[in-house]
Amino acid sequence: MNYYEQNRTSFLEGLKTFLRIPSISTLPEHKPDIRRAAEFLVQELRSAGLASAELIEGPGNPLVYAEWLGAPGKPTLLLYGHYDVQPADPLEEWKSPPFEPEIRNDNIYARGACDDKGQTLILVKAVEGFLKTKGALPVNVKFLIEGEEESGGGHITAYVKQRPPRLAADAAVICDTEMFAPELPTICVGLRGIVYGELHVEGASHDLHSGVYGGAAPNPIQAIAEILTALKDREGRLQIPGFCDRIRPPSDKEQAAWARLPFTEEEYLKEMGARELVGEPGYTVFERTWARPTLEVHGIRGGFTGEGAKTVIPARAVAKVSMRLVADQRIDEAIAQFKSAVAEVCPKGVSAEVKILHVGDASLTDPDSPFIRAAAQALTEAFGKETVYTRSGGSIPIVGVFQKHLDIPSVLMGFGLPDDNLHAPNEKFHLPNFYRGIEAVARFLEIVGQ
Amino acid sequence: MNYYEQNRTSFLEGLKTFLRIPSISTLPEHKPDIRRAAEFLVQELRSAGLASAELIEGPGNPLVYAEWLGAPGKPTLLLYGHYDVQPADPLEEWKSPPFEPEIRNDNIYARGACDDKGQTLILVKAVEGFLKTKGALPVNVKFLIEGEEESGGGHITAYVKQRPPRLAADAAVICDTEMFAPELPTICVGLRGIVYGELHVEGASHDLHSGVYGGAAPNPIQAIAEILTALKDREGRLQIPGFCDRIRPPSDKEQAAWARLPFTEEEYLKEMGARELVGEPGYTVFERTWARPTLEVHGIRGGFTGEGAKTVIPARAVAKVSMRLVADQRIDEAIAQFKSAVAEVCPKGVSAEVKILHVGDASLTDPDSPFIRAAAQALTEAFGKETVYTRSGGSIPIVGVFQKHLDIPSVLMGFGLPDDNLHAPNEKFHLPNFYRGIEAVARFLEIVGQ
Repeated sequence: MNYYEQNRTSFLEGLKTFLRIPSISTLPEHKPDIRRAAEFLVQELRSAGLASAELIEGPGNPLVYAEWLGAPGKPTLLLYGHYDVQPADPLEEWKSPPFEPEIRNDNIYARGACDDKGQTLILVKAVEGFLKTKGALPVNVKFLIEGEEESGGGHITAYVKQRPPRLAADAAVICDTEMFAPELPTICVGLRGIVYGELHVEGASHDLHSGVYGGAAPNPIQAIAEILTALKDREGRLQIPGFCDRIRPPSDKEQAAWARLPFTEEEYLKEMGARELVGEPGYTVFERTWARPTLEVHGIRGGFTGEGAKTVIPARAVAKVSMRLVADQRIDEAIAQFKSAVAEVCPKGVSAEVKILHVGDASLTDPDSPFIRAAAQALTEAFGKETVYTRSGGSIPIVGVFQKHLDIPSVLMGFGLPDDNLHAPNEKFHLPNFYRGIEAVARFLEIVGQ
Repeated sequence: MNYYEQNRTSFLEGLKTFLRIPSISTLPEHKPDIRRAAEFLVQELRSAGLASAELIEGPGNPLVYAEWLGAPGKPTLLLYGHYDVQPADPLEEWKSPPFEPEIRNDNIYARGACDDKGQTLILVKAVEGFLKTKGALPVNVKFLIEGEEESGGGHITAYVKQRPPRLAADAAVICDTEMFAPELPTICVGLRGIVYGELHVEGASHDLHSGVYGGAAPNPIQAIAEILTALKDREGRLQIPGFCDRIRPPSDKEQAAWARLPFTEEEYLKEMGARELVGEPGYTVFERTWARPTLEVHGIRGGFTGEGAKTVIPARAVAKVSMRLVADQRIDEAIAQFKSAVAEVCPKGVSAEVKILHVGDASLTDPDSPFIRAAAQALTEAFGKETVYTRSGGSIPIVGVFQKHLDIPSVLMGFGLPDDNLHAPNEKFHLPNFYRGIEAVARFLEIVGQ
């Protein structure tokens, strides 16, 4: 379809404009940028031929909605993406500024390039091609693009839970995952869930001098260290009682398919920039990152961390922690088990409180769904290679929400690459994947509409 | 001596002016304030009658020096204090701004009120009284006041190590400790030493997404938690091999004297604002805080600690840690033991490096020295109560430096109170102790000069 080849320059310009908006949803000071990003999408959708594009306001960041329903009798697809991005720190590690997109070696570098602005635009541009060249689509489409994916905000969930008639669809399409390897078309059929929270630990009522009181005073940072190491042993085994009981192990067939994926620990280590893999003994890397839960600490606030020396025993400290969940773990049960384990191992002299910031269900999709099969065919055609099925260790809570409240499966066609530095400095998106992704989604719409 | 009673208002005004200078030595942006504080002291000393007052420039913050040597045949005392202060954070916990001194209930509240600006001025004002009223002192005095005590800077040490003739003295006098209880005159005969450093832990070369890599990627914060909990057990027992071998236990006589000190755990807990005491089982609070070493973590930098959620596995993290040492532990040995223990317990997948920021020797002084006896008598007269001998868990490295390089003992007459919030928000100094401290030091000079 020539339109897609002819318009690569303008697609790229659109992506650059989108990437220049620092729409970081976790930082309140970027509220205006969030709105600019949402409004940019409304304009893009209108230019693409979707006159219905509009913002849906509500508690939290606006949703972007647009629909084209001119194919009665054909399936309806709900096209999902998100326009918000992760914070960019540590800034000093970026080779080019995170919100000034720069192209190096066929990659575009910027925060959100891959996650998820580039992939969200793939959906928009695929639809644009049909409407510009034929004035019609082979299927009905509904765009629903949110601005709180990275902050765990609940606007889209609250909206979907109402089951508004305008969201009725046969399947969702989500471009927010990655290809297993360059040139290897990939569909993700499983995602880990998440429970993200804070562990608040308090010792004395005020900061204390470590000379005067050291030896008798409780230290909240040491207490956090005690709790973290009690809940996960040195080898990476979780020690939260009952937590692993409901885990559904991958089938033999899935395990066998994983074993055929092109993978070496050496390459994987190189991609991570690490010297050695860690994690639960007795499980493969795929199991550890796709099919086993985790407990990770993301940061500890409290005490003195400036230049030089301060001999303080802080009164309180806060750790950011998350648990990744897998099928069939349940969020409420996991939270209760975590809280109870924290209370159990909390050292004397301090109090520990858990505050949950956001959650998302794990999901597993049936690879035999006709929408999954159509996507696999479209990807195979666009990339000229057999499509592989994987899972992802990350969490896209909306998949569970669509399943639960709209009763539809999600097709996860991802065009990111393993070294795209999601959530890290120097995030990038491989431009050939941007262009081929658009063509693959277009072909998918054709196949579904046949 | 009437001069001291008549001039309390001007003493207080001088203290307030001194406290308004935010001379924080650990924060580079306060360099100009450091100089202002040093120059303020030169002026104060000149006004007191010490025309010789001057700055000694060198590597680091200036030393303030002044001498009066008009009592040949009499002992010479080296009067030590420091004009730098600790950082004031967390600012939001101060009831009045840290550098706008405010008097509430006979206490003056400001950063440095007690540690050590108030106590440094005690020495200046005691000398001023003699020079203003008699034109002469009963002994020879040399002031040596530094500006790097809170940052572990080495200017004073480097200077003292040269053994300049102008520092020749019979004993040092240091007002930088506290009274055991209100109204209870106290001489501190033992101090803990310190090794303050940073533990740098590196995992991957860049921050990683905890969804994608969680389960296989090393987490430097978790690794720090592993190291900290391996080096100190849940009960507070240090697990650094060999570290405790050289500890000299307090004598039975000293233990018996400590047992007579007015002390209840309830009051102590209240002072700390804590719910429960922690620390090594089998030792009293005095032993744990005065005669046993510690390992404390003061803060951990790395990862995400802002508002909201970021699912990052940080590439690196840094913990600020200190060890307090007691007689007869040796600094170099302690550092080597610590480094070797860290290497031993460092989890796989990360590297750990120890950087030492500053050190100070532990010290123990003979309570039968004539200078200690003179100080005890002066304090007993000024406060109307028998002087008690204590130790302090804090570190005043200069005591060891004076002992080692000038071969003189130090007399630690302290006028702080246990609840003065040193190194913490709402630091204060009890004004009656300020005034009585001046009179006690004056009396001490008289007794030494007899």
